Amino acid sequence: MTPTVNPDRLWQSILDIAAIGPTPDGGSNRMALTPEDTAARRLFQGWCDDLALHREQDAIGNMFFRREGTVPTDGAVAFGSHLDTVPTGGRFDGIFGVMAGLEILRALHDAGHRTRAPLELVNWTNEEGSRFRPAMMGSRVHAGDMTLEAALAIADDAGTTVAEALQASGQAGPLTPSPRGWACWLEAHIEQGPVMEATATDIGIVTGTMHARYFQMVVTGEPSHVGPTTMDRRRDSLAAAAEIVLAVEKIGLTAEPGGRASASWIENYPNARGNVSNITRLHCDVRHDRAADAIAMESALRDAIAAIAARRLLRIDIDPYATFGPIHFDANLCNLLRRKAEARQLTVRDMTAAAGHDSVLLAPLCPSAMLFIPSVGGITHNPLEYSTKEQVARGAQTMLDAVLDLAG
Amino acid sequence: MTPTVNPDRLWQSILDIAAIGPTPDGGSNRMALTPEDTAARRLFQGWCDDLALHREQDAIGNMFFRREGTVPTDGAVAFGSHLDTVPTGGRFDGIFGVMAGLEILRALHDAGHRTRAPLELVNWTNEEGSRFRPAMMGSRVHAGDMTLEAALAIADDAGTTVAEALQASGQAGPLTPSPRGWACWLEAHIEQGPVMEATATDIGIVTGTMHARYFQMVVTGEPSHVGPTTMDRRRDSLAAAAEIVLAVEKIGLTAEPGGRASASWIENYPNARGNVSNITRLHCDVRHDRAADAIAMESALRDAIAAIAARRLLRIDIDPYATFGPIHFDANLCNLLRRKAEARQLTVRDMTAAAGHDSVLLAPLCPSAMLFIPSVGGITHNPLEYSTKEQVARGAQTMLDAVLDLAG
Repeated sequence: MTPTVNPDRLWQSILDIAAIGPTPDGGSNRMALTPEDTAARRLFQGWCDDLALHREQDAIGNMFFRREGTVPTDGAVAFGSHLDTVPTGGRFDGIFGVMAGLEILRALHDAGHRTRAPLELVNWTNEEGSRFRPAMMGSRVHAGDMTLEAALAIADDAGTTVAEALQASGQAGPLTPSPRGWACWLEAHIEQGPVMEATATDIGIVTGTMHARYFQMVVTGEPSHVGPTTMDRRRDSLAAAAEIVLAVEKIGLTAEPGGRASASWIENYPNARGNVSNITRLHCDVRHDRAADAIAMESALRDAIAAIAARRLLRIDIDPYATFGPIHFDANLCNLLRRKAEARQLTVRDMTAAAGHDSVLLAPLCPSAMLFIPSVGGITHNPLEYSTKEQVARGAQTMLDAVLDLAG
Repeated sequence: MTPTVNPDRLWQSILDIAAIGPTPDGGSNRMALTPEDTAARRLFQGWCDDLALHREQDAIGNMFFRREGTVPTDGAVAFGSHLDTVPTGGRFDGIFGVMAGLEILRALHDAGHRTRAPLELVNWTNEEGSRFRPAMMGSRVHAGDMTLEAALAIADDAGTTVAEALQASGQAGPLTPSPRGWACWLEAHIEQGPVMEATATDIGIVTGTMHARYFQMVVTGEPSHVGPTTMDRRRDSLAAAAEIVLAVEKIGLTAEPGGRASASWIENYPNARGNVSNITRLHCDVRHDRAADAIAMESALRDAIAAIAARRLLRIDIDPYATFGPIHFDANLCNLLRRKAEARQLTVRDMTAAAGHDSVLLAPLCPSAMLFIPSVGGITHNPLEYSTKEQVARGAQTMLDAVLDLAG
């Protein structure tokens, strides 16, 4: 009996997880290590226990469920994603990848199929980074990109540290986070964009990530009074920041379809109804499939900002504090996923990941790859986030087929 | 001996007050009922006690220092301003009016001159509204525009109420705030704008206030992800708000010299580096010397906002929650101030107040007027706020001359 995913069971598991931390508009709010995240973890753990998997947890709360192979000394074929969400989260981002992994193990269990290599299903802690920054914290610490001590000391806006939240939720495991000698890593995820739907693609093969460049900016104007200060005398930092926001947007529009540019964080001072603003902070990023184009976007942004500062006679400091990628996923794994999808008569397309994913942290540790399924309307980080039952099942089946090939 | 102000003494008093709550850049930070404000009040009170004035204080902390006249039953000629500042405050906004009033009483004391009518010098509580909103709280409660109970219950950002701050600072007096039967009210203030300096005017006669219209706006877009969401699919509330900020600014520039338009308060959600913003709140106001022109500015703003909402396919709610003015000050008092300034060979100009002042609350209670002195560079609510010793002395002397005329 060939192991096959059960679309109804997989779909119901996704809905069951989504029912924890529901938002009024049909989405989920399960920020990392909150009671809601913890409840979802417990439900997931119960399902894994039903399959008699070997459970391990590390000190940053990452959960590993191992199914032994016939050759236990082989490196494991590992897969999974994350169960935490942003506050305005949908039901699929992250959850699909964990539930697809669970469905793979359930299908093997039902079929009585024992692989040669061991399998490991993973739920990474705090992928979203909404409560504790940075994002992808669990996989980051696992990969050694951040020390455990540094991560544990990070506090949320209420002052609660990761260490305290792990203790309170009972999610601090005994293992020291470190690479586990995996043979390879696979992650199934929703596209979070409109391309697959627009091109009638069933399975996206994620060959790598965009190149992203991140900027923190400070606009410094002059304090003055909104009443008597005539318009021509003002050095209004908020008005200058507004011009920057629109310049960023324009650069993004010009760089489509391969590029994006976003300004999504602002802090204004004194932010008072009676005072012309004199300090405004902005965060923005530019990203593109091609690194050279992202660099050109940065250059266009710097030109725009210099012109704004000169015309408005105020100071704009730019801190290009980080860049990211491009990461290239393992070509052999990408080929395998492509072949498995095509063998099922699914339409396939190579994709570039524009968002951060745990797989980005794992790629340096072992051969890694990602598979996308379509997002209806391209909507994500939003209660309206949706993929159909069929799309979900196709993604999980393609993953299962690839896992069987890899684990023997 | 004709009572005459002492420019050096007046100047030194202003500097002595400014030394309390100093900012590193030469300004003052004395928000209402803070330890700094309380220290300034104590210094001021000591100076008044040296003149053997009769001190009274009401339950909202307003301070009244009375100098009896020869006919104690006459209504008092009252004058003063406020000692509190914004966090980025200068040394003259408010302080000049209180110190000019003190100098008037000192000059009368030196000259041994007893007026017929009583005189009252006032320091109003929380004119700026930086710590506790609304602004002009003390004069507002005095005038019955807000109940004492409502004012006492207002909390600052740290959760401390006005009642608690009054208790902690020892500034809660026994009097019930209410009008005091004054014959008239006068306030000397800095212009806080560039017009007097630009026109070489010594004394501004404030004939009234602008008409101001206040708006709270909420832009509602769609949550999405800064990575995979292509630019054309976004409904970015922050980008829309940026367009509104610039539309407000343009309307203000078009309405010069009589008009101003300001957007100086913004709140963005989720204000996260990874999420396209979906809710952005803005506050703005338009104001003009002529009420009809302010209404036309509002109309232009509404047109601009409707166009932004339509083009970006998002919702913008506008709450026009308040209007203010125009207030017309007493024509006879304005004429008196004008004559007294001209008698001293000072250049005079009629002005419209663009900022809020305590006098606005007092105008309905008794004949009221204001006098302006120039602000160097038009700079205000800023440590660079400045008026020269001579400008300060001219303003105080004109006030003294008018008080002598009014009080006999």
